[in-house]
Formats: sequence, C-alpha cells, structure tokens
Amino acid sequence: MHPIRFDYTNVMSPAVGVHGLGEKELLSLAEPSARALAAVLARRTKDLRWLDLPYQDALRREILDYAASVRGRFENVCVLGIGGSALGNTALHSALDDPYHDLAPKAGRPRLFVLDNIDPEWMASFLANVDPAKTVFNVVSKSGTTAETMSQFLILRAELVRRLGEKGHRENLVITTDESKGVLREIVRRDGYRSFCVPDGVGGRFSVLSEVGLVSAALVGIDIEALHAGAAAMDQRCRTSKLLENPALLHAALQYGLHTWRGLSMSVTFAYSHRLRNVADWYAQLLAESLGKKLSRAGQTVHRGPTPIRAVGVTDQHSQVQLYAEGPFDKWFTLLAVEEPTAEVTIPRAYPDLEAVAYLGGRTLGQLFHAEREGTRIALTEAGRPNAQFVLQRIDAHAVGQLIYLLELSVAVMGEHYDVDAFDQPGVEAGKIAAYALMGRAGYEQRRAEIEARTRGPKRIL
Amino acid sequence: MHPIRFDYTNVMSPAVGVHGLGEKELLSLAEPSARALAAVLARRTKDLRWLDLPYQDALRREILDYAASVRGRFENVCVLGIGGSALGNTALHSALDDPYHDLAPKAGRPRLFVLDNIDPEWMASFLANVDPAKTVFNVVSKSGTTAETMSQFLILRAELVRRLGEKGHRENLVITTDESKGVLREIVRRDGYRSFCVPDGVGGRFSVLSEVGLVSAALVGIDIEALHAGAAAMDQRCRTSKLLENPALLHAALQYGLHTWRGLSMSVTFAYSHRLRNVADWYAQLLAESLGKKLSRAGQTVHRGPTPIRAVGVTDQHSQVQLYAEGPFDKWFTLLAVEEPTAEVTIPRAYPDLEAVAYLGGRTLGQLFHAEREGTRIALTEAGRPNAQFVLQRIDAHAVGQLIYLLELSVAVMGEHYDVDAFDQPGVEAGKIAAYALMGRAGYEQRRAEIEARTRGPKRIL
Repeated sequence: MHPIRFDYTNVMSPAVGVHGLGEKELLSLAEPSARALAAVLARRTKDLRWLDLPYQDALRREILDYAASVRGRFENVCVLGIGGSALGNTALHSALDDPYHDLAPKAGRPRLFVLDNIDPEWMASFLANVDPAKTVFNVVSKSGTTAETMSQFLILRAELVRRLGEKGHRENLVITTDESKGVLREIVRRDGYRSFCVPDGVGGRFSVLSEVGLVSAALVGIDIEALHAGAAAMDQRCRTSKLLENPALLHAALQYGLHTWRGLSMSVTFAYSHRLRNVADWYAQLLAESLGKKLSRAGQTVHRGPTPIRAVGVTDQHSQVQLYAEGPFDKWFTLLAVEEPTAEVTIPRAYPDLEAVAYLGGRTLGQLFHAEREGTRIALTEAGRPNAQFVLQRIDAHAVGQLIYLLELSVAVMGEHYDVDAFDQPGVEAGKIAAYALMGRAGYEQRRAEIEARTRGPKRIL
Repeated sequence: MHPIRFDYTNVMSPAVGVHGLGEKELLSLAEPSARALAAVLARRTKDLRWLDLPYQDALRREILDYAASVRGRFENVCVLGIGGSALGNTALHSALDDPYHDLAPKAGRPRLFVLDNIDPEWMASFLANVDPAKTVFNVVSKSGTTAETMSQFLILRAELVRRLGEKGHRENLVITTDESKGVLREIVRRDGYRSFCVPDGVGGRFSVLSEVGLVSAALVGIDIEALHAGAAAMDQRCRTSKLLENPALLHAALQYGLHTWRGLSMSVTFAYSHRLRNVADWYAQLLAESLGKKLSRAGQTVHRGPTPIRAVGVTDQHSQVQLYAEGPFDKWFTLLAVEEPTAEVTIPRAYPDLEAVAYLGGRTLGQLFHAEREGTRIALTEAGRPNAQFVLQRIDAHAVGQLIYLLELSVAVMGEHYDVDAFDQPGVEAGKIAAYALMGRAGYEQRRAEIEARTRGPKRIL
C-alpha cells in the first residue's frame, strides 16, 4: 500500500541548467493546471467515465465470478484485440506475472497470449503451437468492425467449431464489446457467447481498468481488486488542485513545460524494470494517440504532440544512452524504478585476484541494478538532460493501479495544456479506409480507383 | 536469393510535397556519397574489419563444427551479453526461428534466451524456470569488464559448478571475448572453457555477423552460411559509388537529407513483420550509438544525431499512427515489408449478412496484412510524411544477411555525412563510472564522495 513517489529534482534548472525548468516557470502552470484538472474532473460522470472505473465494485465481482467459473478449465487465455484492446492486457500480464510464467504455468494461472497483429506467420505459428481447445479466447472490440480482430475471431471460431462442435465451442469464447450496438454484439446475440461490455465514455487507450483489461487479467489470476484499489488511491491523491502536491498535475506540467519552453519534443519512458517494460509501451499509445493532433480544439491547424519513446534500463544504457547523453537536446526522461525487487540474486565471490570481477562478488544483482540506474541518472543530469523518476516500493497490483491511473489523468490534463482533444483519433481513419478499399469492401470502390490510379504513377525502386 | 528492393518513391517531393526531397537536392549528395563510400571501404582491411566478415569461411566452419559437436546435448542456449552482444542475437533468433519456437522446441533446435538485463526479478525467474544443467551459456564480452555480463557469468558459473562439478560444468560454457587481452580471456585460460574471439576492428554494434552473433545462431540451427552469403551479396551490390544504384548510399543520403534539410530528426523503422520487429531494435542501437555524438570529428561541440524509433505494423497503426499522420513534421519512416509470408492463414467465410465482417471471408491474413501496410503507406504519403520501404521477398537467412549488411554500411556512410566518429561511444562512460563508484569498486572512491555530496543536496520528491 505504498504510495508511488515522484522525484523531479533533476528536471529543475538547479540540477540540469538551462535545459531544465525554473521555479517560476513551473509555478506559472499552477493556475492553468488547476483549471485543467477541474475541466477534466467535471466530465467524470459525463463522457470521461474511465475516471470512475476504480469504483465499479459490481463489475469486478461479475468478472471475478466469471473467472472463478472457468478456473482450471483452460491452459491458456488468448486476447484477440489490438491497440487499446491489447496494450493494457500485455502490460498487466508482464508486470504482475512471473517473467517466465508462460514457459511453466502454475496451477490455476493459465498462460496469456495477446495476438495484437495479423502477420500470417505469427498466427500460423500460434495455431501450430497452442491448442485452441485448451484456450479461452477473449475477443475485444468496441465496434466489432476492427478488421484485424474480426479476422482473428473468424479464424479461431472456425477452428474451435471444427474441434469442439457448434455447441461445445462456445465456452472457449468470451466477447468484450459494446453493450447494445455493433456487429460483435449482434454475433453474441446470435451465437450465445458469454460477453462483457465496453462501457461508453471509456476510449480504447483509457480502458485497461475496465472490462477490456480486467477480464483477461482475472482469468490469469491477477488481483484486480488491488489494481482498482491502487487506482482509487491515486484518484483520491490527485483530487487536490495544488500543482506541487498532485503527481498527475505535476507530471503533465513538466511534460508541457519542457516541450513548449525547452523544445524537448521526445518523452522517453525509461523502465528500470524488466516487468514494467510494457507499461512504457502502453503509455506510448496513451501519449501519442491522445496528443498527436493536427487540429487544436478551436479547429486551427497546429500539428501538435510529443513523441513517446520506450527504453529499458539497464539494457538501453548499452544502446540508446550514447545518444541520450550526447545527442541533441530534444528529449526528457521519466524513469520507472522499483525500490524492493520481489526476488533477489546474490553474485558469488570468485577470482579474488582479478579486480575487474572481484568487486562484484558478495553484492546482489539488485544492488548492481540500483547502482546502474543511479549512475545513469547522474550521467544524464550532469549532461544537462532533464530526468524525473517514478519510484514504486514494489511491483504489485496496487502500485500498478496507481501508476496507470496517474498517467491516464496526467495525459487528460495535458490535453488541456496542449489545447487538443485528447480523446479522439481522427488520424487513423485514412489508413483504415485505404485498407478497406484495397480489400474490396463494398462502398469503397471509388477510393480503390483513386489508389489504383495513383499507384500507376512513376516509382523509384532500387 | 532475391535481392532486397528499396522503394523510395514516397520520400521524394512529387509524392509528399514540401517535406520530401527534390531530385536536385538528392543528387547534390551524389559526390559526397561517393567520397564517403570510398573513405569507409578504404578502412576495410584496417580498423573496419566488420566489412569483411561475410568472407570468413574458416571462422564459419569452426563455429559450425563446434555447434555440431554439441548438437542434441542441450535443450537451451542462453546468451549472457548486453547491447551489441545481445541485440543481434535476438534479432536473428526472432527473424529466423518460428515465433513460438521456445514453447515447443524442435529436435536439434534448442530454445534461445538472451539475458540482456540484470533485473534480479528476471534472473530469479530464469533460474526457477530454466534448467542450467540443460543449457549452454554463451558469455559475450570483448573486455570482460562489462559488469552486467560478468555478474551473470559469476551467478551461472556457480550454479553450474554446484550442479555439475568443477570439471563437468565446463562444457555448459562457451566464451566469446578478446583473443588475448582482458579478464575474460584470463578466465578462459585458467578454467579451460571453450572460447571464440571478438576480432579487433569489429565494434559491438557491428558484430552480429562475427563470432558474437554467429555462435548462438549456429547453436540454435540458423543457417549462418546463407546469412554470410546474403551479406556478401549486399557487399558486392554496394561497391558501386553511383548514388542511385547503391541502396546503402541511397538510404544514408535520404536519412541525412531529410534530417538536415527538412528537420526530420526522428527515424522510424516500421517493421510490417512480427519476425522482423527485433531487427528494428538492433538497428536502433546501430543508428543511435553511431551518430549520437557531442563532438564532430574535428572536436567541435555539435550534439548531433537522429533518434531511432521502433514501430511494428499493423500493431502500431492502433497506437502511434495518429501521431505519425497528424503530429509535427519531425519524422520519416522506413517500412520493412515481406512479399511472401512463409505461412498463410485463410479467413473463413461466415455471417454473410453482416457486411462489416463478411467482406473478410475468403481472403487471407496475408492479404489483409498487405492491404493495411499499403493503406498506411498511402495515408502517410497523403499526409506529407516521407516514407521508404525495404521489401524482402521472403524472410530467410540470405535476406536477413543482406539487410544487416546494408544497414551497417549505410550507418558507416552516415558517419561521414554527419561528420562524427561512427565507431566510438564516449557518452556511455560517465554512467558506468558512476555505477562503479556506487558499487564501491577500488579506484573510484573520489567519484563516490562527489556523488554522495551531490545527493545530499535538496530534493524535490512528491
């Protein structure tokens, strides 16, 4: 039940010089931050229902009852979803299950697969290596028109029918979709699948604490009550409109200030934790899709948005830190740190006369991991690169719930600062429509003709 | 044996307008490109020995003999290495083995683990789930002073000795290190481990086609002869100094031109292939660590370097493409495409009256994957975002060898354009030294005192 700490010492100019923020600059965002928070929270009972997810006790019970009803029946859980219907599930699983869980699943804790791509090589390998009959598939799509997810559904459904029959295959499918609208809800009605709802007011990238993330989490045995309790605790902590006391407001203000006033257009989430690496991936969608917008809220063309970058410590010290420390001043860093690892390994003493290895003996991997993280923070700071740090006392569902809620609220507040609609995604339509046209979907014939005319033009290919 | 195609139609201004390159601009790099190539190739027999790796027939035979000698003896291969001693190994394994290979290893093809982090939670899980006695560990470090790798070596060595005895444990270790210098070579001498050399003139990030990448590849059954043959074919193809005929020169010129003249500081590698996703990760190190430099070659402070970003299609269409299509004009894109998937899956026909899914029936996942990739290319192009594409006919060792060599040569040439030393990494030292100091290594006492004084200063923690 430890609250997450947010250390922003090294974002301020006393630590990093001209590329950091000054006290007065930061405080100039106090009033806008308070207004932004009020604007966001006022929508809690309207179109931003995701703010209230941690308090959905009845929903949690329904999901836990379902999970209990199928416990022990399946070796595997497989999510068929993409984007916001996949990234949160993956993040929860890697954060809260044993890293090699899927090699040797424990009793009552099935393996989790999240098939968030349609590469036929991947799907063919899945079909060859994982027994669908021993797998419960959670199909997740609000509209039921997501081509990727629906294709996977058709493939796996046919495979299950072939193996288990029209009647028998049903319990291997659980559908999470709109409560009443859409083609997937219609399929649920016809075929009688067990289903959950994607509630209104919960956009894909803000949905991990809803049915979208919780069904698969409960199926693999993650403590979704603690997850919600952590999120609720963060919600309470972030009710204050005082900038310097509210971690979500502060995180949003630093992102906006460093980008706008210092030109740091890239936001690196540097996870010093193997298990938190996919939280960085989940956040990359949240940040990019919420703020990367052509239009301001008033409809002016602005082409705004920071670029999220995912890094893993210490691994990327040996890959990206050369650029981070010496390259252009265009990034800031948010480290994810864990104070107490849930497991520790001691480095044995050996080769006492070989100093280059002897000094390691008797220490723990955790101590080395900590020293490298601190070493990187110091090096980035001395190189004038603003860096903050979220510190989790330990990785558990409560802490992960806190972190998720903090980042969701922070990005919603950023939407106010950047003056863009943080909850739409108009820029993904063009690609979808072109793909529909190329797939020969009815109604897209004209677009197809346009594309074909275009691709007859001169090409430059080597 | 298909040559990789490079389609750069959509990088040029006729396709993407003002953010693309004009014909004359591109051709203005013809002379500098020819000079850059000559400068790089002149070092082939001197300090850039990695250029000659594809022709090391004796080395390949030695590695294949070793792999044959232990075939069938181990269930697992585990690489203990980090950065350039890990990223290439991971890239080869995911590109050239079945995606779920490690769930159900085939006869004679052990599983591959690459432990490129020191998070104690990860190592503890590895020890609990993978039997070291059935694993051959390939320890990879040129100097033997890499703290991460040496710590892992000490832990696994002790575990093997405990299980197999001082004598018996030796065949579970194979060391890849400097030919004569360094503490790991000294350990090989004392303990009698089987070893390979990291040759001089082959820096970590340019080492995947050397012993560093090939030993683990051969152990898991990857065709390293085809890999080298592909690289050699690309070497031959890239001997020409004609910009428009040399894919490495062209790729380097586009990167430099779009960055320098259009301000596109981010280079997105967008892998439309589940299996090639880690090639993008390997390239991220190659680009970042080679070009991210504080100093020009003449010693002036320049803080140069593009930022690599890794994306996966179609997955990131639902995560990053909103930003890519609508956000600031600060990125260009290189897609990795595969023409003929090695496996295909047909989408069954179903629900004929539900148009939103019915149109998918009878098509293949490969067709949908292709349509989505083309749809994204069209959408990026129409949004004025320069994008190029490498097309592999199919993913095999020959094609992957071509791609690796092309990108290595391209980055070496970029070093000439950007006027930085593409082969050093001075910016990673500061963090290492701070970590040594924090670990209490002899000789770093003064640095430790400085750090402790600093961290006693005021902190801002919430």
